[in-house]
Amino acid sequence: MNSFRSYLVTGCAGFIGSTLVDRLLLGGHEVIGIDNFSTGQRRFLEWALKSPNFKLIETDLLDLDSLKMAFAGGEMVFHLAANADVRFGTDHPRRDLEQNTIATYNVLEAMRANGIKKIAFSSTGSVYGEAVVIPTPEDGPFPIQTSLYGASKAACEGLISAYCEGFGFQSWIFRFVSILGERYTHGHIFDFYQKLMKDPTQLEVLGNGKQRKSYLYVQDCIDAILVATQKAQDKVNIFNLGVDGYCEVNNSIGWISKELGVAPELKYTGGERGWIGDNPFIFLDTQKINSLGWKPKVSIEEGVIKTVEYLRANEWVFEAR
Amino acid sequence: MNSFRSYLVTGCAGFIGSTLVDRLLLGGHEVIGIDNFSTGQRRFLEWALKSPNFKLIETDLLDLDSLKMAFAGGEMVFHLAANADVRFGTDHPRRDLEQNTIATYNVLEAMRANGIKKIAFSSTGSVYGEAVVIPTPEDGPFPIQTSLYGASKAACEGLISAYCEGFGFQSWIFRFVSILGERYTHGHIFDFYQKLMKDPTQLEVLGNGKQRKSYLYVQDCIDAILVATQKAQDKVNIFNLGVDGYCEVNNSIGWISKELGVAPELKYTGGERGWIGDNPFIFLDTQKINSLGWKPKVSIEEGVIKTVEYLRANEWVFEAR
Repeated sequence: MNSFRSYLVTGCAGFIGSTLVDRLLLGGHEVIGIDNFSTGQRRFLEWALKSPNFKLIETDLLDLDSLKMAFAGGEMVFHLAANADVRFGTDHPRRDLEQNTIATYNVLEAMRANGIKKIAFSSTGSVYGEAVVIPTPEDGPFPIQTSLYGASKAACEGLISAYCEGFGFQSWIFRFVSILGERYTHGHIFDFYQKLMKDPTQLEVLGNGKQRKSYLYVQDCIDAILVATQKAQDKVNIFNLGVDGYCEVNNSIGWISKELGVAPELKYTGGERGWIGDNPFIFLDTQKINSLGWKPKVSIEEGVIKTVEYLRANEWVFEAR
Repeated sequence: MNSFRSYLVTGCAGFIGSTLVDRLLLGGHEVIGIDNFSTGQRRFLEWALKSPNFKLIETDLLDLDSLKMAFAGGEMVFHLAANADVRFGTDHPRRDLEQNTIATYNVLEAMRANGIKKIAFSSTGSVYGEAVVIPTPEDGPFPIQTSLYGASKAACEGLISAYCEGFGFQSWIFRFVSILGERYTHGHIFDFYQKLMKDPTQLEVLGNGKQRKSYLYVQDCIDAILVATQKAQDKVNIFNLGVDGYCEVNNSIGWISKELGVAPELKYTGGERGWIGDNPFIFLDTQKINSLGWKPKVSIEEGVIKTVEYLRANEWVFEAR
């Protein structure tokens, strides 16, 4: 882990951010967490806030002056704060630009102001658009963006890489598939669960249900991030994170329904894509991260079931959004 | 040319923008030109301003409300306005973000507000970073950005492509090598000329002079843009623009010196790169644009000589910057 005592985590109250905070604290590190609580949840930080090694700073990444102050004393940044809403990007095109691209620029500038030069970043498999090579490797063909979300994350990657070249930064860029598990608060399982709570007899499915998607369990994701930041020491280290396989949306619906003990009639909206910009086939080549000795421990099916179990035990997340 | 009567050209007072404006007017089109004159030159529009088909609107692309008004009545946008300063990006990292990424977002939003759906965009070969495949094709390996300029142009490409998918836009994205010719106002010939005016007996050369670069003559560039926007009709049309070859910086110095009748002692600053982020070998694969029937008419050497001739006849550009 680059042997630092003090880590900065943006988006520290989010799904992945709060899980990383807990893991860093368990590892004996000091953590400064930053969140604006626009989508983050205070309850995700209940355990962390009991630790003397955790400091929470409530601020917005768009406030550069405040961010420069917040970063004082940090040694490496895990930049996980983002607008992670890929589906509704066209409803508010400025949001990805501000909360992803401009926020990341501000993070880089706040680092520069504080002499911090190491950054790990949560990118996305969406930067591959509709990949022409599947499973998609990190150095596959120059992609054409198909979503404002993917475009903004690709823009962040470019900024980070340019800071590595121009200002001597070092970076770890992680292109995730969708992440599942405890503290999961948005995505298809969330939506299906919510719909089935209202009416367990039927379920509207966007598209034809045959979209092939890959998912990764959140603790496996954190393991991969910690392994890569420890072992990979290029100037710019880019890793796909995912499992060696995929499922159909229909498979996922089957697992969710079984776990909930329901048998809804499925009503497909039709078409290959669930929405404009939906990618009908996501499957990342993870040989590069595997070569560092990391393998996921939890399968897609197990991850889906763990997520449903979490939602059943924490229905407050449906109200909290 | 998609048979439109009225074209919008951003950066209309720039090197390439003003040349395009003249060509569009010569083609019988109406042109609305937009420039903030931060680097554009009114003298480049002398001819255009005499035409009843040209309307100049002086505004800044960062002023979205003003831009939305300016775009009224346009049918297709040629978005050429940019911060084109690749070398000094690290001196002012916010400039590329604002003048390229955010400005392009504003252009897309102003188009959307006016129901305009077609955009041609001046990107750059710098989006390939230090390419691992040379000559570099449009779909070469997913690049790692090495300059804030390249990163910002790649971000613009991503935004434009996402608008094509999300809002039904159609785009033509041109990845240029450096452009030479009449109205050239920055780059290595400009710098060398300026230095040699001060002291023709010696010339400081950044790097070792062996950097291999490719250049394209501005009228050939405009020809390619017009051919591609007419003939290519995919949703997102990406074309490298360049010549089938490259020269060394040392070759270029030889042609410039010969044209100026000087024989300076060359003083190399050393190293493979002229500056941080300088790409020591730029050579784009142009088979895709060639397949549309376009070929450059002017060689790199002829382009360099035409540029020196232009600067000799227009030394005012050195004062005007």
